[in-house]
Amino acid sequence: MEESTKLKSLRGSHASDTVVAIGSGEGRVLVGGGHFALMAGPCSVESEEQVLRIAKAVKAAGADMLRGGAFKPRTSPYDFQGLGIEGLKMLVKAREATGLPIVSELMGDKHLDFFLEHVDLIQVGSRNMQNYDLLKALSRVRKPVLLKRGFSSTVKEWLLSAEYLLSGGNEQVILCERGIRSFDPSTRSVMDLSVVPLVKELSHLPVIVDPSHGTGRSSLVPSMSLAAVAAGADGLIIEVHDDPEHALSDGFQSITPECLAGVNERIRKFRTLF
Amino acid sequence: MEESTKLKSLRGSHASDTVVAIGSGEGRVLVGGGHFALMAGPCSVESEEQVLRIAKAVKAAGADMLRGGAFKPRTSPYDFQGLGIEGLKMLVKAREATGLPIVSELMGDKHLDFFLEHVDLIQVGSRNMQNYDLLKALSRVRKPVLLKRGFSSTVKEWLLSAEYLLSGGNEQVILCERGIRSFDPSTRSVMDLSVVPLVKELSHLPVIVDPSHGTGRSSLVPSMSLAAVAAGADGLIIEVHDDPEHALSDGFQSITPECLAGVNERIRKFRTLF
Amino acid sequence: MEESTKLKSLRGSHASDTVVAIGSGEGRVLVGGGHFALMAGPCSVESEEQVLRIAKAVKAAGADMLRGGAFKPRTSPYDFQGLGIEGLKMLVKAREATGLPIVSELMGDKHLDFFLEHVDLIQVGSRNMQNYDLLKALSRVRKPVLLKRGFSSTVKEWLLSAEYLLSGGNEQVILCERGIRSFDPSTRSVMDLSVVPLVKELSHLPVIVDPSHGTGRSSLVPSMSLAAVAAGADGLIIEVHDDPEHALSDGFQSITPECLAGVNERIRKFRTLF
Amino acid sequence: MEESTKLKSLRGSHASDTVVAIGSGEGRVLVGGGHFALMAGPCSVESEEQVLRIAKAVKAAGADMLRGGAFKPRTSPYDFQGLGIEGLKMLVKAREATGLPIVSELMGDKHLDFFLEHVDLIQVGSRNMQNYDLLKALSRVRKPVLLKRGFSSTVKEWLLSAEYLLSGGNEQVILCERGIRSFDPSTRSVMDLSVVPLVKELSHLPVIVDPSHGTGRSSLVPSMSLAAVAAGADGLIIEVHDDPEHALSDGFQSITPECLAGVNERIRKFRTLF
Repeated sequence: MEESTKLKSLRGSHASDTVVAIGSGEGRVLVGGGHFALMAGPCSVESEEQVLRIAKAVKAAGADMLRGGAFKPRTSPYDFQGLGIEGLKMLVKAREATGLPIVSELMGDKHLDFFLEHVDLIQVGSRNMQNYDLLKALSRVRKPVLLKRGFSSTVKEWLLSAEYLLSGGNEQVILCERGIRSFDPSTRSVMDLSVVPLVKELSHLPVIVDPSHGTGRSSLVPSMSLAAVAAGADGLIIEVHDDPEHALSDGFQSITPECLAGVNERIRKFRTLF
Repeated sequence: MEESTKLKSLRGSHASDTVVAIGSGEGRVLVGGGHFALMAGPCSVESEEQVLRIAKAVKAAGADMLRGGAFKPRTSPYDFQGLGIEGLKMLVKAREATGLPIVSELMGDKHLDFFLEHVDLIQVGSRNMQNYDLLKALSRVRKPVLLKRGFSSTVKEWLLSAEYLLSGGNEQVILCERGIRSFDPSTRSVMDLSVVPLVKELSHLPVIVDPSHGTGRSSLVPSMSLAAVAAGADGLIIEVHDDPEHALSDGFQSITPECLAGVNERIRKFRTLF
Repeated sequence: MEESTKLKSLRGSHASDTVVAIGSGEGRVLVGGGHFALMAGPCSVESEEQVLRIAKAVKAAGADMLRGGAFKPRTSPYDFQGLGIEGLKMLVKAREATGLPIVSELMGDKHLDFFLEHVDLIQVGSRNMQNYDLLKALSRVRKPVLLKRGFSSTVKEWLLSAEYLLSGGNEQVILCERGIRSFDPSTRSVMDLSVVPLVKELSHLPVIVDPSHGTGRSSLVPSMSLAAVAAGADGLIIEVHDDPEHALSDGFQSITPECLAGVNERIRKFRTLF
Repeated sequence: MEESTKLKSLRGSHASDTVVAIGSGEGRVLVGGGHFALMAGPCSVESEEQVLRIAKAVKAAGADMLRGGAFKPRTSPYDFQGLGIEGLKMLVKAREATGLPIVSELMGDKHLDFFLEHVDLIQVGSRNMQNYDLLKALSRVRKPVLLKRGFSSTVKEWLLSAEYLLSGGNEQVILCERGIRSFDPSTRSVMDLSVVPLVKELSHLPVIVDPSHGTGRSSLVPSMSLAAVAAGADGLIIEVHDDPEHALSDGFQSITPECLAGVNERIRKFRTLF
């Protein structure tokens, strides 16, 4: 990262940590600069009843924000593609019921206005980390963006994608490590936790971790959540389902609300001490 | 690819090879089913004079089509982003002067109408192979699409991205191998030539090879072009510049028109014999 | 790991965690089954004075064992190859002076007898994880072995290399994650911490982590050491040098004894609470 | 490869291509400097009758040398480990019957004397490319060595392993590309053919290709063999079995003698023309 003096995403340009504020009023959540957020919820929004039930459960388990996919980037055109705008409306109702700000993925600029009005944190998914038309559109708005690392992107490329957002004027950017691709099929991805302290050394932006995609295996999520916090993460985003075996997507990597409560307890304990 | 009987991109659904027809009239080019095409031109369109000069040179060297980037997906927002619509207009003039059909990359649906009217083969770049909004938009048009493999995408994912195009009704799809990411910095990418016979075994779609991005090193382009043809490729897309050292992008992997003429001669000789 | 009922390295064959005992008498160190060990020392043994000085320093900082390379597997034949048997004798003197058991790498069976007599824990390095002649030789002895994961080996291959040791009769095996190879040059390796809970789920063998090779960057070692412990590691092996800038090898990833003391303090605090 | 002036393996040290001579008398085979060799035979030597039968068949199909594994590096200790010295004796008989020089893998220095006396080309396998004790032992002998690239080794590391042989005095070294590890399970390895022209640009040593391990799929072997020759390879080493479905190892990637005859014919035709 030889251009350190020029890039807005790097430390040289910005002495203190960026703190991103998500939502407003009582439910406002801060991420970065010592503020930690636990985001949890289903991979896909499946129905109003489902998302409401899980939203209440993750809030009770200690979550600060609700995640849920309405537009789903699926490898096959024949897989469930998400409920779209209807799914987003269900998330909005779940926010009204629980007060939890919501984060959801935007796949193109067609629905940008709806996201700007209703979603608190706009996620750019791993497959779109280098979708520069999307990044440019998001650089012109004033809404926090969660930029997931591409599953085979270098740290340099990831920070340069953040630079597209910052250079366009949107400084409310959170980075998210979600695992990289490797030669070993024993886990779905390799969670590259070293990037947490590395990115914090290079950049002032907050960085959170997704241990659900990072491991692809629910039994590994609790210990890797604690490891991510020990590595210095500013937050976690975890897939939670109250009936993982019947989830419409990613059930194998979703934990239950009860498991999330245990994760939350250990994280809070850890953060009190260190 | 267990779902072979269901997927439109696989052999099971389609007995004979797909032949894609690009352009019209005298300059019409066929790819697939025994038809081979050599596409060549600059990485970026830099000026009208440059693209005209190179178009004539690659035509003289034996190229069947002209490639040129007008919208450039660049890792850094501060790098040259291409001439955009103005660049496309220069390509159109070069086509008028030479008769060569043109291929250029589309990065989002904003300029789709212009591409439909003026570009003969629409390229989806490696970073956008899983930009499903873009794929869905292109599935609804009747214009050939060149689908580059993501730089860390599996063959299965690649064919499923093609499936997004086919399932939406656009059957004019050409696949393009352009190298994958590895641990070895000695070449920019690893050209994965085995996918040529593998894809032809699994699918009826034509597959071409990009040895310029595939190797990232101009000295390797001639031998790897011949190797790609020996592996069974239905075409090549090669970056050519008449002054590689002063190219605005990718000069290190561009060959000269003279070098292209030698490549073309060896390919034609090879194809006569096998 | 479909053969779970047959493999001696897997849980199915062994209800309780294996505890490996290293050294004897007062300095005896246990690893696994709730026992944790901190191993530290220089990458290479450079002189008797150096290894004695560092041994005392790491002991004062809280280390349980001394690491030090005498036979060094170097990529180039022209790089420093280690002091060999003379280096091992210096490690033995450092053990006499501090009481710390020693771990060092064996590269072939030529010096096996010397290792059996003088070294407490024999390390098989990453490059030799599938050197089956070496594994077979070590399977016949009764001395603990530290089996590093190959830098591009799957978890399955790693456990099957452990199986070579166990099936030959040596059950005193500790696994060590040391980072895997990836496409990203921003760290020397990718520390694959998820394998810690994964291996503990699959196998009864203890697993430790090497954050020095795992990150290749001394500034990341403290946070990744704590992350490894949070992930469930049974120990750490860390490169320590009191003058990293003048180390004969791997100075860039070595931490100072003072830094190690801080790491040790945080680990002990963590382990008291969880 | 910044050290180009110092390394014996690089062009700077050696103006002309190295030609390696294997075997003696009428059956002598040359590799490099324009000389091409086709090596073929079973993955494992299974019985005297099998190896004799296949040796005659590959000779009839056009092979210049016989390959066969007697000591097999197997991932699991419970898999067939090869016939060892007995297998080598069977290879020697097959050489007597056919005149084909033999190539076989040596896994450690225990059987080095037997190999020196009886084997014409000693193979160092992919897993042992950085087994420096083995390389040092082979650097002191005067027998050609076939150095396979490690399945995750960079070109630089590969040439530096060759440097271990050359710097010790053994200049009869042939390099062999056999595929590298990637994220895509659709082929067993990724055949990295670009290294053929790259290595020939950097080094004076001959380089051959193993399309059997390189693809792991017999249906891809014929086209990738021709592609390797088009890329500039000085030879091929191909697994051949007359009953692939019942081979004790690697049947899925073995071709039949009839298929080899077709491969040989196309290669000879190609080499006549280019």
